[in-house]
Amino acid sequence: MYPESLQELIQSFRYLPGIGEKTAERFAFAVLGMDVEKIEIFSENIKQVKEKIHPCKVCNTLTEKEVCSICSSENRNSKLLCIVEDVKNVFLFEKLGMYKGLYHVLNGLISPLEGINPEDIGINQLLKRIQEGNFEEIIFAFRPSIEGETTALYIKQILSGLNIKITKLASGVPMGADMEYLDSLTLEKALVDRKEIT
Amino acid sequence: MYPESLQELIQSFRYLPGIGEKTAERFAFAVLGMDVEKIEIFSENIKQVKEKIHPCKVCNTLTEKEVCSICSSENRNSKLLCIVEDVKNVFLFEKLGMYKGLYHVLNGLISPLEGINPEDIGINQLLKRIQEGNFEEIIFAFRPSIEGETTALYIKQILSGLNIKITKLASGVPMGADMEYLDSLTLEKALVDRKEIT
Repeated sequence: MYPESLQELIQSFRYLPGIGEKTAERFAFAVLGMDVEKIEIFSENIKQVKEKIHPCKVCNTLTEKEVCSICSSENRNSKLLCIVEDVKNVFLFEKLGMYKGLYHVLNGLISPLEGINPEDIGINQLLKRIQEGNFEEIIFAFRPSIEGETTALYIKQILSGLNIKITKLASGVPMGADMEYLDSLTLEKALVDRKEIT
Repeated sequence: MYPESLQELIQSFRYLPGIGEKTAERFAFAVLGMDVEKIEIFSENIKQVKEKIHPCKVCNTLTEKEVCSICSSENRNSKLLCIVEDVKNVFLFEKLGMYKGLYHVLNGLISPLEGINPEDIGINQLLKRIQEGNFEEIIFAFRPSIEGETTALYIKQILSGLNIKITKLASGVPMGADMEYLDSLTLEKALVDRKEIT
């Protein structure tokens, strides 16, 4: 019904997360309405991103170089390592701007139920890095979940021989939250981990 | 903060309607997660759509050919012409599938307030087509608005010498609507245009 090339573009937009037929159509018409130069750039950007970007050899985050700008920076605290489950979390922390240590990106979390074992998420690479490095503290920044706990526990265990402080992000009431709508697990956690006001 | 090529792709996605920073980031990561072939096709589709698609010489709808498949079809009723304000509406009607006449796409509607005059929306092209054609009925399918009324009235006037039936889409209560939430103008219109049950 649509001309073929328009229909094909609509199909392509549908590969994007959360995009249905209607929105894909709107996007395709929007592309039709763009300048030719803008379209060229758009098309080129899509093609290049996968060609140029790959995991950092050291920490597994996304970079255009062999070693990412964080790992190769002289201004980071190389004794502090934050372990995340997804590369997006590195960018989240970097946007925050207050963390000055290094990162290590796992390929997800251990999940026996889904058949995801330690070797699937790149634990060996992490272990090698820690053994060869000189870290004083390792921070787990996983989402609060069974998988997060399992992965943290597993890594803690295999590192037990080394003299490294192991921490994880605090759980509790999020800032600005309405107490009424808080789930009981979060409230329980916040109560158990209560902090003295000094 | 993101690698350059990723940042550029995020910027490109932000050109799409209704897409903010967060969603553009999600889209860019989704592209990173696609197969190389899928990315090639996506990139190519974006580039090609503007090269291949242009207005039909006769009716102004979008097509890859000189004359669109509707205008060149033998199965359409060439005595019936539906005038729309936007090319998207042609596809809306075609999805419906019950209209078997031809179309003519204007470049919007007359709007003295916004300085849009009859010649800006391609009235001359339409008039020429009608004079050279053999139409028995012309249907206005504009959105219900002052601009829609103005444009319909204007075209009706310049066609007054010709022996052509001029109609417009019915206004009234939309199917499945909740009467309570209906605006008063629509209700008034529905009351005035009430139909005898036979």
